[in-house]
Amino acid sequence: MAGNSFGQAFRVTTAGESHGPGNVVIIDGVPAGLPLSIDDLAPDLIRRRPGQSKVTTQRKESDEAEILSGVFQGKTTGASIAILIRNEDQRSRDYSEIKEKYRPGHADYTYDAKYGFRDYRGGGRASARETNVRVAAGAVAKKFLKHYYDVEIVGYVKQIGDLIAEIKEPEKVTLEQVESNIVRCPDDGVAEQMIELIEEVRKDLDSLGGISEIVAKNVPAGWGEPVFDKLKADLAKGMLSIPAVLGFEYGSGFGAAGLRGSENNDEFVQEGDEIRTKTNRHGGILGGISTGMPIVVRCVVKPTSSLAREQDTVTEKGKETSIKTTGRHDPCLVPRFVPIGEAMMAIVLADHALRQKMQQQ
Amino acid sequence: MAGNSFGQAFRVTTAGESHGPGNVVIIDGVPAGLPLSIDDLAPDLIRRRPGQSKVTTQRKESDEAEILSGVFQGKTTGASIAILIRNEDQRSRDYSEIKEKYRPGHADYTYDAKYGFRDYRGGGRASARETNVRVAAGAVAKKFLKHYYDVEIVGYVKQIGDLIAEIKEPEKVTLEQVESNIVRCPDDGVAEQMIELIEEVRKDLDSLGGISEIVAKNVPAGWGEPVFDKLKADLAKGMLSIPAVLGFEYGSGFGAAGLRGSENNDEFVQEGDEIRTKTNRHGGILGGISTGMPIVVRCVVKPTSSLAREQDTVTEKGKETSIKTTGRHDPCLVPRFVPIGEAMMAIVLADHALRQKMQQQ
Amino acid sequence: MAGNSFGQAFRVTTAGESHGPGNVVIIDGVPAGLPLSIDDLAPDLIRRRPGQSKVTTQRKESDEAEILSGVFQGKTTGASIAILIRNEDQRSRDYSEIKEKYRPGHADYTYDAKYGFRDYRGGGRASARETNVRVAAGAVAKKFLKHYYDVEIVGYVKQIGDLIAEIKEPEKVTLEQVESNIVRCPDDGVAEQMIELIEEVRKDLDSLGGISEIVAKNVPAGWGEPVFDKLKADLAKGMLSIPAVLGFEYGSGFGAAGLRGSENNDEFVQEGDEIRTKTNRHGGILGGISTGMPIVVRCVVKPTSSLAREQDTVTEKGKETSIKTTGRHDPCLVPRFVPIGEAMMAIVLADHALRQKMQQQ
Amino acid sequence: MAGNSFGQAFRVTTAGESHGPGNVVIIDGVPAGLPLSIDDLAPDLIRRRPGQSKVTTQRKESDEAEILSGVFQGKTTGASIAILIRNEDQRSRDYSEIKEKYRPGHADYTYDAKYGFRDYRGGGRASARETNVRVAAGAVAKKFLKHYYDVEIVGYVKQIGDLIAEIKEPEKVTLEQVESNIVRCPDDGVAEQMIELIEEVRKDLDSLGGISEIVAKNVPAGWGEPVFDKLKADLAKGMLSIPAVLGFEYGSGFGAAGLRGSENNDEFVQEGDEIRTKTNRHGGILGGISTGMPIVVRCVVKPTSSLAREQDTVTEKGKETSIKTTGRHDPCLVPRFVPIGEAMMAIVLADHALRQKMQQQ
Repeated sequence: MAGNSFGQAFRVTTAGESHGPGNVVIIDGVPAGLPLSIDDLAPDLIRRRPGQSKVTTQRKESDEAEILSGVFQGKTTGASIAILIRNEDQRSRDYSEIKEKYRPGHADYTYDAKYGFRDYRGGGRASARETNVRVAAGAVAKKFLKHYYDVEIVGYVKQIGDLIAEIKEPEKVTLEQVESNIVRCPDDGVAEQMIELIEEVRKDLDSLGGISEIVAKNVPAGWGEPVFDKLKADLAKGMLSIPAVLGFEYGSGFGAAGLRGSENNDEFVQEGDEIRTKTNRHGGILGGISTGMPIVVRCVVKPTSSLAREQDTVTEKGKETSIKTTGRHDPCLVPRFVPIGEAMMAIVLADHALRQKMQQQ
Repeated sequence: MAGNSFGQAFRVTTAGESHGPGNVVIIDGVPAGLPLSIDDLAPDLIRRRPGQSKVTTQRKESDEAEILSGVFQGKTTGASIAILIRNEDQRSRDYSEIKEKYRPGHADYTYDAKYGFRDYRGGGRASARETNVRVAAGAVAKKFLKHYYDVEIVGYVKQIGDLIAEIKEPEKVTLEQVESNIVRCPDDGVAEQMIELIEEVRKDLDSLGGISEIVAKNVPAGWGEPVFDKLKADLAKGMLSIPAVLGFEYGSGFGAAGLRGSENNDEFVQEGDEIRTKTNRHGGILGGISTGMPIVVRCVVKPTSSLAREQDTVTEKGKETSIKTTGRHDPCLVPRFVPIGEAMMAIVLADHALRQKMQQQ
Repeated sequence: MAGNSFGQAFRVTTAGESHGPGNVVIIDGVPAGLPLSIDDLAPDLIRRRPGQSKVTTQRKESDEAEILSGVFQGKTTGASIAILIRNEDQRSRDYSEIKEKYRPGHADYTYDAKYGFRDYRGGGRASARETNVRVAAGAVAKKFLKHYYDVEIVGYVKQIGDLIAEIKEPEKVTLEQVESNIVRCPDDGVAEQMIELIEEVRKDLDSLGGISEIVAKNVPAGWGEPVFDKLKADLAKGMLSIPAVLGFEYGSGFGAAGLRGSENNDEFVQEGDEIRTKTNRHGGILGGISTGMPIVVRCVVKPTSSLAREQDTVTEKGKETSIKTTGRHDPCLVPRFVPIGEAMMAIVLADHALRQKMQQQ
Repeated sequence: MAGNSFGQAFRVTTAGESHGPGNVVIIDGVPAGLPLSIDDLAPDLIRRRPGQSKVTTQRKESDEAEILSGVFQGKTTGASIAILIRNEDQRSRDYSEIKEKYRPGHADYTYDAKYGFRDYRGGGRASARETNVRVAAGAVAKKFLKHYYDVEIVGYVKQIGDLIAEIKEPEKVTLEQVESNIVRCPDDGVAEQMIELIEEVRKDLDSLGGISEIVAKNVPAGWGEPVFDKLKADLAKGMLSIPAVLGFEYGSGFGAAGLRGSENNDEFVQEGDEIRTKTNRHGGILGGISTGMPIVVRCVVKPTSSLAREQDTVTEKGKETSIKTTGRHDPCLVPRFVPIGEAMMAIVLADHALRQKMQQQ
């Protein structure tokens, strides 16, 4: 009830703060027999890690994960899988400013309002540090999806500031293309401009928002539940549960506001044994259930709230003041969002894969 | 696990199909002592009802609700509240076309793919008919929120096609303004244009998408849970669980992609005893928890998929064919979406109101 | 969170009071394609019904059920199944005594303590009247278990007062044997004595407790989850959720307190392709998971609390007084408990059948 | 869905195996502001620990717990609390026998039947080793209950073999009395006999069952939910989720089978401002809700299944063989069950304390 779990059948529960001993996730629902080792977790943890390039924060974290349970002789046992990532750098810092002043755009004030008390070290539970164990759980979900269903998930940066990548066929973008540049944008020309823009904005002590597009391929038709647990609903929740995400859309999304039905509908066609649609404006989901077409979603990520320039604010005692956030922050969160968004999509899909099994007596 | 429930503490569970005996909702978690009667449900049921104006479908439904349990001597007892709305018009119709052909944009194909079997009468469980009991449950949630917390929820139409209403202060829009015209748009000038546009598109046998904005006032700071059950995450899920919704955003939303941090952050100020923000680009939510500022969300609703013009499709046997949907359909779903979106927001907020109670020992 | 739902995958949610309009259950999780009609519900509803014989209450209820959703053309659709049973006899009665005085052994006082308010008509939500929709849901679960797994559940009366039936092979008792006498005891000699004893105690304005044994046959090995959702744990919860049940045991149960390990262990043997145990002191469950042996549980049911003789009590204002419960009550609840206990066992097993499906990728 | 979580509002999720790196629990729902440190966990962990006396196993475990999250400056923050207990002694042993042969009374066979694969090291997930983190979570629950509600929980051994302690006033038994002897039986005379009996049975390479009684004092009237989540139902589930527990009863329990209503009912009386009952045959629960009287439950614990004498069994290939379990095992599990049973009762009560808060608007 305090919101530390996600999913029904593939269910992850997390704990941990930014500057506490570490973060841990327990995954409930992975069937027995899936090959799994620490090596399956590492690649995405590295993609999420701070300090990976000049467009991200320069903070260092090792993000070394330890699997505490649920795996025996290289395979899952059906038992819950716990993964621990210790926080490395817990040296005492001077938190006096952030302790007393509410940072604009941050959760400092709302945590105080909710709990009357707050772990102010680096954001505590509100810190995006907790996404490291989500990414670990997402890696398990990806392995499960690939192993049993050949489902693959690839995300990338679609927009930063006003720079928009042109991606004509989202389902054809590969992980290699995404990782070929440090902003994770598969449109190389625009990627270069994005890198320049981020550099410029960083020097201006400011930050940038953007949009990430995430695609799942080979999802069979039939995943998702009618009514409340529609696939689109669970994807929206998963994405909006990530810090800094302000919106979610799939298929034609907000663009559909300006379309007519005849422009937005996708007509069905038969292709061999399969029913497909001529176009994919429905983003792979109809009636909340997957159609077998690629699932295409987009999330908007706000510009980093921590700015190295003065902003007005108040103290916890209600005194007006100003704050300038020092420390190392991402000038643009979207490149590091990509693996986190993929992880949440993987968790949602793994959950619905398991739930669909129950339907099949 | 089959997705017929929503919420944790204020929890609604529904059943019913478009052309079965009726729809029913069970609400679990309403505290004892809340004054409640059938009169609390009627206004929103009427706002959701088909046939209410020329911009909606001309179908007739009575939507008379019956409270089956949980209320005694005009007050809730703490027991689960069941509300039944019988379907009126169940005369046998000719469903042969919709039985065999997959309507573009509908759930016919995905239900067959999922279940191997489908109640084809008017969409069955996939029909928006089931939203009538959501609206009934939402009316209970609204009563609860108003009675104990003075929270009020008002939604309206923000955009239809390319026509965008100008609403400078979302939190000042009143129910009366919204209900003053049949498109539920509080910008009267634009409302008239919208009505004309809908009329025109309807004659063209086409349909229109649009955007609805929904606002909650007086929500105290502190509602919402960290991590997975962030207020924004549950709102997104609630909204995306509604048929035809393709996207969700709050505060600056997708617009934040083009903003810098210095443009998007809201600075804190002290106003009397209260901490407020100078602007509300955060839409009343920071770190997934309410700030006490108005909560402002937007949903995009796709153009009605049922069109009275030929569209290509296939039969359930995989034969190519075409379909023209006869019957009475809304040319634009957004006006009738408004009370449904409000209902889902009310259910989410009632859930988090109860959950925050547990925090306060 | 207010406790009106049971089960995870096969999930029932109920509403309704003793003297309100009716009781309703929504069943979430039944797969599509199961043949189901109202005729599947009737037999167990009749077995639960008051007024069926001289050893039960003489109240009359018709218990006519209506399936509101989830069934189309004689088969389940995968949608939630709602079943409504209206209360028949709602004529106004004189509740003044029960309204003000707390009946010993009843929930009157605890409901007031919890809610500060109470639907005092015939027990309200605390009435065993609500078990009618449990039995309806249990009938759906039984159909599911029989159809897909050939699982059968039979319960019977094992003990009333000090009269104990001798049942050497619980798994061989048939429904016909159970229904061959009005106390539902398959040991005919003891059954006759039980009927006499009940008659005697009724004349003495008193009531009797007893024990029911319930057996499930053909449950495959592998149902039940480790740790918290052990099959024994969910069965215990299901049984203890029934009014008047004071205890639960399975296999050797409380008798194991006086046994040594060498007397209580069941040795494994190979029988053809199957692994079995020589004896069944483990009641079909080891490590919380079914072994394939018959599942054998027992519940103790307290003597009816409503007595037609004076008992001391207090009023809701705290004034000492006495109360004599008039009206028609079962002198012994155990015979009518049998179908209710079977229903809860069926719901638990159906839930774990579905959950085990997810394990089998 | 794989059953690694317990509770709704105070919710614990566990992971870990007997011989893996360690066990971990995440507790969701503890309100902010509760004083908590590792010192609160130690006493009960020591009471549960193997090797504490001659009547328990001689195995050694250190059971040193680490709080990974959710506590800051000595108080809970409202965030999820993770507690890790590493396994100490993971040296490689010879598991060849237990790997291939199914131990009678153990979960070896059912795990293989369920998962087709098994972590055979010391029982894996089925081992009672996982109760160490339950006891840690229970210590947090006890602290919560004591701090906010003055609720206290004391358990003790009531019966071992045929030796039954005489405890006239269960609610007056103190922790000191319980801990005054190594069998945790507050009837000193019987305790001595129990110790002798255990010694004797151990020498005979056999084991003993028994019964533990657990009492909660100062629980206010009103905890527990009607219908499915009755306090008695959740207590039964909690207790039956513990390894080796074969039955649960509360109040007059199975003894009520032989009682008449006039003998079993408890009459209400007024005592000062409070409504009490003259007797407590209802064990503190009526209608599934606490009455304010002491809550008294009993659990039967089977004799240890691991015996150092030959027992017939089969191999996983279905070959008949015999097994003699070597290693160090408790000759009687009941003394070490006491803190585990208390922990589960504390978790259930903490859950319902939080849930009752939601009722109180």
